[in-house]
Amino acid sequence: MTRLIDHADAPPEVRAVYDDIKARRGVPDVNNFWKALAIHPPTLARTWESLKEVMAPGALDPLTKEMLYLAASAASGCTYCIASHTAAAKAKGMTEAMHGELLAVIAMAAETNRLAEALRVPVDPAFE
Amino acid sequence: MTRLIDHADAPPEVRAVYDDIKARRGVPDVNNFWKALAIHPPTLARTWESLKEVMAPGALDPLTKEMLYLAASAASGCTYCIASHTAAAKAKGMTEAMHGELLAVIAMAAETNRLAEALRVPVDPAFE
Amino acid sequence: MTRLIDHADAPPEVRAVYDDIKARRGVPDVNNFWKALAIHPPTLARTWESLKEVMAPGALDPLTKEMLYLAASAASGCTYCIASHTAAAKAKGMTEAMHGELLAVIAMAAETNRLAEALRVPVDPAFE
Amino acid sequence: MTRLIDHADAPPEVRAVYDDIKARRGVPDVNNFWKALAIHPPTLARTWESLKEVMAPGALDPLTKEMLYLAASAASGCTYCIASHTAAAKAKGMTEAMHGELLAVIAMAAETNRLAEALRVPVDPAFE
Amino acid sequence: MTRLIDHADAPPEVRAVYDDIKARRGVPDVNNFWKALAIHPPTLARTWESLKEVMAPGALDPLTKEMLYLAASAASGCTYCIASHTAAAKAKGMTEAMHGELLAVIAMAAETNRLAEALRVPVDPAFE
Amino acid sequence: MTRLIDHADAPPEVRAVYDDIKARRGVPDVNNFWKALAIHPPTLARTWESLKEVMAPGALDPLTKEMLYLAASAASGCTYCIASHTAAAKAKGMTEAMHGELLAVIAMAAETNRLAEALRVPVDPAFE
Repeated sequence: MTRLIDHADAPPEVRAVYDDIKARRGVPDVNNFWKALAIHPPTLARTWESLKEVMAPGALDPLTKEMLYLAASAASGCTYCIASHTAAAKAKGMTEAMHGELLAVIAMAAETNRLAEALRVPVDPAFE
Repeated sequence: MTRLIDHADAPPEVRAVYDDIKARRGVPDVNNFWKALAIHPPTLARTWESLKEVMAPGALDPLTKEMLYLAASAASGCTYCIASHTAAAKAKGMTEAMHGELLAVIAMAAETNRLAEALRVPVDPAFE
Repeated sequence: MTRLIDHADAPPEVRAVYDDIKARRGVPDVNNFWKALAIHPPTLARTWESLKEVMAPGALDPLTKEMLYLAASAASGCTYCIASHTAAAKAKGMTEAMHGELLAVIAMAAETNRLAEALRVPVDPAFE
Repeated sequence: MTRLIDHADAPPEVRAVYDDIKARRGVPDVNNFWKALAIHPPTLARTWESLKEVMAPGALDPLTKEMLYLAASAASGCTYCIASHTAAAKAKGMTEAMHGELLAVIAMAAETNRLAEALRVPVDPAFE
Repeated sequence: MTRLIDHADAPPEVRAVYDDIKARRGVPDVNNFWKALAIHPPTLARTWESLKEVMAPGALDPLTKEMLYLAASAASGCTYCIASHTAAAKAKGMTEAMHGELLAVIAMAAETNRLAEALRVPVDPAFE
Repeated sequence: MTRLIDHADAPPEVRAVYDDIKARRGVPDVNNFWKALAIHPPTLARTWESLKEVMAPGALDPLTKEMLYLAASAASGCTYCIASHTAAAKAKGMTEAMHGELLAVIAMAAETNRLAEALRVPVDPAFE
């Protein structure tokens, strides 16, 4: 059983991260991912700092970033990540039609990825 | 050496696909991917028909679809696909800043995907 | 439901492998992995013989080998293997701090692996 | 062709990272990985900061960390990363015998990972 | 919880696909895969049309195709797909001995795949 | 550059393996895979012994085994392995039509694998 560390049982440096996550996201508690990661406080803190920076609005809007995160997670087959980022993308505005098209794109990519590799297709000079 | 079938050497059902690709994309020749896939005409035709349908504008715009395709291809490590879809996304308007943020998101996803799996984090009831 | 073959129901060639595993490891029963693999006795026997040889002390000590096994299993996302090799590494002396650092390294590797592939970085001459 | 940004052509925030890498590693130039990543300065800086933190000596020594990095990179099939981390591990003391055993362990892990997944082996209660 | 759409709750274009699946396979209901895919009717319809075409008897017989499907699914670690295609292959005549040999082959492939990549073996001219 | 060990430079235990490969396959020299693996003689010997056992005719014929090997290698994206096992399958009788259908099956599997995972489809009770 994966050990999940609740706020009440967490050392101060873990609580500080939990509190920042809760404040930024406006949620009453952090997800299991963070409670599991808390077994190694430096990795917890670094991962959260990176995530805040990477997912902040920039040249791409938050919904697009979330859908890219979901596409990458689905392509690597991480069940937990698919569940959490599907929920996050829906919370940021992904409709069922958008979800369906995203699924169609990643399935298409999986298919052509395998074909390109299985045929060892040489990269076109025009792509360079 | 991967066999690439040029238009001049292709049977009629392959030429028909090549001609449709060239007309739709306004390009003088098809990419190596299609020339390699032409060793099996039914797979060539089906893949192109699916791609046309999946990548058509819908609830998601063409640039977003292309970036999702790139994210999924990068997550599965297909060199040819990364090259071709990076080129395609740039042609559809992906700037260098957008490319950089896309890379940051897929790298972040790879990191948290591995952590969630390595810790076997149970899915939160709230995601269901 | 995966069929698990218990000692009592196993044919002699399977029992012989089970008995060797139990004797070498000093355990009262074999793990589910072996009970599932027993549906094909030649694969059961060959896998166990290989594992004994590969995991024996050599230029690398048993704990380092076990942590490498865990790192590779985590990178390929095998849930069962992550669970079994995390337990095995702890039994051989992996502390929680070592586990945390191992997780940090594989997450870092996942991140830079994806970046190197997505950017199609050419191998430096100095590495050759 | 992947664009590689040399020190002479780099903006100040990129040069600062290059200079830190060169100083810490005692090398005359940075590897291609960093020159490719420089197309997105925030990702370059964050990746280097994370790497410094993760790979610093801790509960695990630098050679063990480097071998874990190599094992994870090999398991995910990243050619560039395998080349760079094989070179780095050798520089930190990995002998040919240690390299051979590392290869044997990751090959064994790949084999049992696939078997455990293909048989959908249930996790043993004892691992929890 | 993944939403599964039953026949009674499905729109006409989904029912048409379900009815075709049931008629072709001679089964009273469709599998969960199709009920989940029904959240996006165009992807449901396209996937089923492709599957019918790809899995039809041709130069390869149906059992060989099903075992190739299982081998590919096992190599990519998809739990649902392993379960469904193991069942389908058994229904088409895969014996336990054939299953065991298939498992041995994919485990062997996983092992040599990793070794070839980790050693960055150059492709032999004779293979081209 | 990957070090390849030729017969003339190999120690006796490596030569013995090379000689067995050449005799069994009736070829004048071994492939690069074996020449690279020779940096670790115990892994070379064990891999060859396993391969001989796994690929021997049994409940499955040699061509079917070779195509399963190719399907698994293509699904895991190993370029060298795809090249060598495509050549081996052709040598054992895989026609271009069979190759095309094999490619279609693994592409289809990749597509449905991703969809099943992205939708987290629960395994049907009937599969158990």
